[in-house]
Amino acid sequence: MIMHNDPIAPVIFGVTLILIAALIGRYSARYFNQPTVLGELLMGVVLGNLLYLFGYDLIIILREGIACTKIVQIVISGTPISETITSVMDPQTAALFLEIARGPHGQEYLSIAQAVDIFSRYGVIFLLFHVGLNTCIEELKHVGMNAIRVALMGVLLPFSLGFLVTWWLTPDASHAMHMFLGATLGATSIGITARVLQDLNATASKESHVILGAAVMDDVLGLVMLSIVSGIVVTGSMEINSIFHTILLATLFISSTLLLGPHIIRLLIRLLSKLDVMEAKLFISFVFVMLLAWFANLAGLATIIGAFAAGLLLHEKHFNAWGGSHRRQKYSIQELFSPLESILAPIFFVLMGIQVKLETFLDWNVVFLASGLLIAAIVGKVAAGVVAGKQLNRLSIGAGMMPRGEVGLVFAAIGKTLGVIDSAMFSAVVLMVIITTLATPPLLKIAMKRGVHEEVDSQHKKIKLCE
Amino acid sequence: MIMHNDPIAPVIFGVTLILIAALIGRYSARYFNQPTVLGELLMGVVLGNLLYLFGYDLIIILREGIACTKIVQIVISGTPISETITSVMDPQTAALFLEIARGPHGQEYLSIAQAVDIFSRYGVIFLLFHVGLNTCIEELKHVGMNAIRVALMGVLLPFSLGFLVTWWLTPDASHAMHMFLGATLGATSIGITARVLQDLNATASKESHVILGAAVMDDVLGLVMLSIVSGIVVTGSMEINSIFHTILLATLFISSTLLLGPHIIRLLIRLLSKLDVMEAKLFISFVFVMLLAWFANLAGLATIIGAFAAGLLLHEKHFNAWGGSHRRQKYSIQELFSPLESILAPIFFVLMGIQVKLETFLDWNVVFLASGLLIAAIVGKVAAGVVAGKQLNRLSIGAGMMPRGEVGLVFAAIGKTLGVIDSAMFSAVVLMVIITTLATPPLLKIAMKRGVHEEVDSQHKKIKLCE
Repeated sequence: MIMHNDPIAPVIFGVTLILIAALIGRYSARYFNQPTVLGELLMGVVLGNLLYLFGYDLIIILREGIACTKIVQIVISGTPISETITSVMDPQTAALFLEIARGPHGQEYLSIAQAVDIFSRYGVIFLLFHVGLNTCIEELKHVGMNAIRVALMGVLLPFSLGFLVTWWLTPDASHAMHMFLGATLGATSIGITARVLQDLNATASKESHVILGAAVMDDVLGLVMLSIVSGIVVTGSMEINSIFHTILLATLFISSTLLLGPHIIRLLIRLLSKLDVMEAKLFISFVFVMLLAWFANLAGLATIIGAFAAGLLLHEKHFNAWGGSHRRQKYSIQELFSPLESILAPIFFVLMGIQVKLETFLDWNVVFLASGLLIAAIVGKVAAGVVAGKQLNRLSIGAGMMPRGEVGLVFAAIGKTLGVIDSAMFSAVVLMVIITTLATPPLLKIAMKRGVHEEVDSQHKKIKLCE
Repeated sequence: MIMHNDPIAPVIFGVTLILIAALIGRYSARYFNQPTVLGELLMGVVLGNLLYLFGYDLIIILREGIACTKIVQIVISGTPISETITSVMDPQTAALFLEIARGPHGQEYLSIAQAVDIFSRYGVIFLLFHVGLNTCIEELKHVGMNAIRVALMGVLLPFSLGFLVTWWLTPDASHAMHMFLGATLGATSIGITARVLQDLNATASKESHVILGAAVMDDVLGLVMLSIVSGIVVTGSMEINSIFHTILLATLFISSTLLLGPHIIRLLIRLLSKLDVMEAKLFISFVFVMLLAWFANLAGLATIIGAFAAGLLLHEKHFNAWGGSHRRQKYSIQELFSPLESILAPIFFVLMGIQVKLETFLDWNVVFLASGLLIAAIVGKVAAGVVAGKQLNRLSIGAGMMPRGEVGLVFAAIGKTLGVIDSAMFSAVVLMVIITTLATPPLLKIAMKRGVHEEVDSQHKKIKLCE
């Protein structure tokens, strides 16, 4: 008999529970010396599937995700439900969903689901903004031919393998789906690899330098790949014309962003110079990220590409106009956004975990597909290490490129939103992300034992982050 | 022909536009040396009413607020619309709303409205958490009899006057509404008064000490008043029994919070000791605020009371377990929550402004009511200054208590959500908040010119904030 007077109370309840679940996952991950992302993701998988087994209504809505919003939309529009609903959700689940939505707690559950969805999507935007802030365009110039070769192969090989394997296993599905799954395999999570290398005390090795340089490049290459593939999905056409159109739009977006971005920042700074420096830094950065995310979407790209570009373009030095005294410039952009990201990103990871439907693996076809994806994911990246050159420990480079982490997950989430990837595929991809991320640290340790090459040039001891 | 692939893109667009509006309002307010809250609120009023005149669809949804959610709920539940809708919205607006919701951009607008609503409600919670963090229980003990007298009268007088005036002007409305409007008049915004006193260089005067002490007490007294009145509204009964029940629940909540709160914090800290200090501070505070907000709602109180209580209970010293070195304890709780509050609270103020329907003032009854409220608001607080004692400048004390600022606004928003206050009343209350806040600085300056009494005791020179 809970009486919710304030409509935000159930939302607070749901969102906070998910955050607590994320904290438990993060805590456990740290206990077992694993990446925190993994803990949050696995916590979501366990929680989602257990509560689903117990028939907990809210979880049924949360694991369907965006499909619920679409059904609500159909109901509001007044279209006869039976006609259209099968394209969104299987009729049985849809009927169950509607029963819950019309039940006594229906509105509360829908509000919670909507809030969690909005928060997790903002979380992804802040996540990619963060990746952008930590990627230095200058650094990319000094990355070395080895790293460039590894990066290119590390995207192209897993993409091709993924495309072929999924085509072979699901010949009836669209090529758009095969390409999307391939693109997901191309991602590399620099964060996870960097931490493992640090734990192994191997950041000064030549191999680390190649891995991290390639991983930084992969962020950019992966996003380009994602743009092209989503463009194909959205326009629904595989013709050269339409692919060309997408590439043109993407190029236009990137070049206009690179050209106009700094001017927009300077304009915003001039307009808001009356504000306090902290306010200005927070608001200008926030508005800039959101404008670019929205603009990217307008250009037919993913919002996260805009967020990433915003991170690339924003620098602390833009705010020097306020004076550089220690007191006034107390916080960096990254520090100001850290609370927002820290609260919102874990919600995304837990939600992704919740949306993994373990029961889909009762179907042998899904098991085959998941295994195929996993093998393509591992073989693709490890094989990419071969191009690094004979004088280096190539296995360790390949292993270091393996974890997909948050980036692979973001790609899968976008595919799900676009409707290219169904529940079973999505579950298979998340499993791939979990296993490649879990397998990296032990594999890298074993590979590194064969010996690595200490970097002689002290100038390149570590991958440098932008100042 | 904007193609939104990513469902978050329209939300980003809407929320960011509101934030930009808030920034312009804030900027203009600073230009005219006015409180920023006022700029954001007025920006909302101007924008909302202008865009409404131009028939902009999204604004029609935003200014109806929670009522739209209720109509969506009715539609989903499958109840015949014509039967129930008049209790939520006037049928003409409801028909217009449904037409928009079923139109080509309906789903986008509904998502934006939902996101703005959720963000603004979280904003209010962080706002009250902030007020709580800045309120020191120790300080309340040293506040002096003068301030206590002023605080008590400053709540009771405006409450009684507001109750009587609104009863007189709207005899047919429920007493619950009269009481709610009365309670709204009792609020005092310490932030605005403190800034004006600082601008006048008068923080060291005895009068300032009384004003600020009374304003701090008023935060607590106002919230108690709010609890009692909302309790009456929710239970729908004016019987002594039910009022007693509410007071009992409120007392139970406050005492159990004060008793158990510190233990819960310590428990959370023990559980999460593996986390980094920054993470721990952010997550423990966040979870604690949300738990208390939810728990307050469970006890029949407003969520903001829980948030305020969480602010009172949380101290930096709780996190000393992580070691007090400068580097590790770099950010205070307040600094960590400042980005969240800075982004979300302005959304609340602009939204409140948007929900002011200027066309309601075309009705003379509303004009009379608004004037009556305004007079009760000014007379009530200025008269409360009289009890401060003859030796002080009583007019300046009364004038200093006048601005309602954000607190009055939060009360009005709660009344609107509970359905006690209709659109016209709400518009009248916001107008009262704007005018009392606008009038305070000039009135206080004039009153202060008659002379104030410099504090002799250097120990009490300023209102102290908690360490």
